[in-house]
Amino acid sequence: MEFNGNQTATDVNQTKPIRCIVKLGGAAITCKNELENIDEENLEIVSTQLRQALLSSDKVVGMDWSKRPGISDIACNVTGFRDKLSVDSTNFIVVHGGGSFGHFQASNSGVHKGGLQQPLVKAGFVATRISVTTLNLEIVRALAREGIPSIGMSPFSCGWSTSGGNLPVADLSVVAKTIKSGFVPVLHGDAVLDDVQGCAILSGDVIIRHLAAYMKPDYVVFLVSFVNEEFHSMHFHPPTEPNAVLLREIGEHSLLAIAVGEDGSWSITKPTLQHMNNQVEITVAAHDTTGGMVTKISEAAMIAKLGIDVYIVKAATSHSVKALSGELREKIPDDWLGTVIRFSREEVQ
Amino acid sequence: MEFNGNQTATDVNQTKPIRCIVKLGGAAITCKNELENIDEENLEIVSTQLRQALLSSDKVVGMDWSKRPGISDIACNVTGFRDKLSVDSTNFIVVHGGGSFGHFQASNSGVHKGGLQQPLVKAGFVATRISVTTLNLEIVRALAREGIPSIGMSPFSCGWSTSGGNLPVADLSVVAKTIKSGFVPVLHGDAVLDDVQGCAILSGDVIIRHLAAYMKPDYVVFLVSFVNEEFHSMHFHPPTEPNAVLLREIGEHSLLAIAVGEDGSWSITKPTLQHMNNQVEITVAAHDTTGGMVTKISEAAMIAKLGIDVYIVKAATSHSVKALSGELREKIPDDWLGTVIRFSREEVQ
Repeated sequence: MEFNGNQTATDVNQTKPIRCIVKLGGAAITCKNELENIDEENLEIVSTQLRQALLSSDKVVGMDWSKRPGISDIACNVTGFRDKLSVDSTNFIVVHGGGSFGHFQASNSGVHKGGLQQPLVKAGFVATRISVTTLNLEIVRALAREGIPSIGMSPFSCGWSTSGGNLPVADLSVVAKTIKSGFVPVLHGDAVLDDVQGCAILSGDVIIRHLAAYMKPDYVVFLVSFVNEEFHSMHFHPPTEPNAVLLREIGEHSLLAIAVGEDGSWSITKPTLQHMNNQVEITVAAHDTTGGMVTKISEAAMIAKLGIDVYIVKAATSHSVKALSGELREKIPDDWLGTVIRFSREEVQ
Repeated sequence: MEFNGNQTATDVNQTKPIRCIVKLGGAAITCKNELENIDEENLEIVSTQLRQALLSSDKVVGMDWSKRPGISDIACNVTGFRDKLSVDSTNFIVVHGGGSFGHFQASNSGVHKGGLQQPLVKAGFVATRISVTTLNLEIVRALAREGIPSIGMSPFSCGWSTSGGNLPVADLSVVAKTIKSGFVPVLHGDAVLDDVQGCAILSGDVIIRHLAAYMKPDYVVFLVSFVNEEFHSMHFHPPTEPNAVLLREIGEHSLLAIAVGEDGSWSITKPTLQHMNNQVEITVAAHDTTGGMVTKISEAAMIAKLGIDVYIVKAATSHSVKALSGELREKIPDDWLGTVIRFSREEVQ
């Protein structure tokens, strides 16, 4: 992980402390198996929960004054703002994945493998960016309708690039300035330039780790979907047993607690599984160009290693509200369902 | 005009020479009097003309593989790319205005006057960005459908900001890298942060001047609409005559040639107007938050002063094709209709 010449510690530290970084999993806000279809209902619930958990006001002041299909009028209550004396304080960042946006375009052209001199890759790069920025705009609008002062920011336009598909070179000064000005940056997985292979896909999960490392939020929340494939690729493979146990079944129906050591290694502390030796082997689904669950857990462990709690929780549930509000940092209730990944040599409480 | 620490002359010079910068006037591609309505027909013609004039190939290889309203299938001919051995060379930049996008949101909230601590301004900032990025996405898609490898880039995300509403602090390295990688950056007028007044509107015309000054294109083309208000605000006001003559009538129905001196002052060389003394007074229409024609002519003169030809021409006409192709640099045909602004102490040929 590197910074370019424009990045200094001062740039990032000038901003106020970040409360949290929220990842909206692509599968949680889109219909993953239907091409470019947003799960409007889930997106609306998620947006409402973000406002309730992270904005100080209950009053919604809509900030999307653009036309919507099927709705003739623009929703703009200018006079409503005149009574409002102060702006709600916000200090969080949203990063979203692609879900059913971008994957088709990227995987059909091989953008993630690089090779911009090939017409197909170049066209796929353009097509991928169109698809992911379409989703970004819709998410920004959904958040703005809830009164969250959201600002869409594409990693490509921010000048972020990768090297060999891996390490982001990312100037965070624009993100920091955006937060300092009272806005909520909404970033996304994107097709970016790569100084080794020409181009690559920079996943939302890698962005999260980068932001977490340099902006030191109090906690990070991954809002995911359990009904789609997001977790399908992750299995427990106890070496002595032929049958794999799906991790998603544990994470969805009971608390899963993972403790991360100083070296980044991790082990499951809750529930206690018999015959498992805490050993996990992960297989990647072939269609997932961003690495899916492998990336997610690895990145989460890297974040937790920094002393930042990571919660992976089903989006649009009562459990996700608890994770977003930060109350899990004090104590995790017995009835909370989700995964907590926390730096500790001891068992997670 | 300043650069931040990340900007060096090397960054910009690393890119190949820029052939031209094209401004798509907001009124030319939107129905300016209808809120957030794109003039799809004009936009398609403009996109086709850009491909014909600036790409080396006549074959269209569509790069928008996203769903469109009313069209169920994604237009992606992956096999078509396999026969294509090379990528068409491109070296131009597109900048567009807002037209009927963004103006409503900006003027109703006063974003151009600053004051982000006011809830209305803050909300208007979010709403303006949603509106202008919606238009940007549609323009990128229209260009991509014509096979132009277009990449939407928002000035805000690029980290560009203003100071007192005037001077852009703009790092051009991402634009330069984008061109170097064979893409066409598509920028737009945007709401940006301002280090004096909190926020401001950075107009497409100011962006053009900035890009022209540092990227030294061979020529700059402003594609405008004469049927809308864009030119209404500009009049000849001969001091001795009470009746103003609309400049648009000259620019639309005959050649208008303007010569720019070393000090940036300009005078009309064609046609020769009696009793005019070449004196022009300009009034600004109240609704235009970006200064409209005042900005346009002033910016054009600043560009011409650098030795870069500027053509202002009606979009989607045979005359705009001639301007885009660069053939006017050699000789301006007698039947060409439009405005040419050129550095010269002599009469423009």
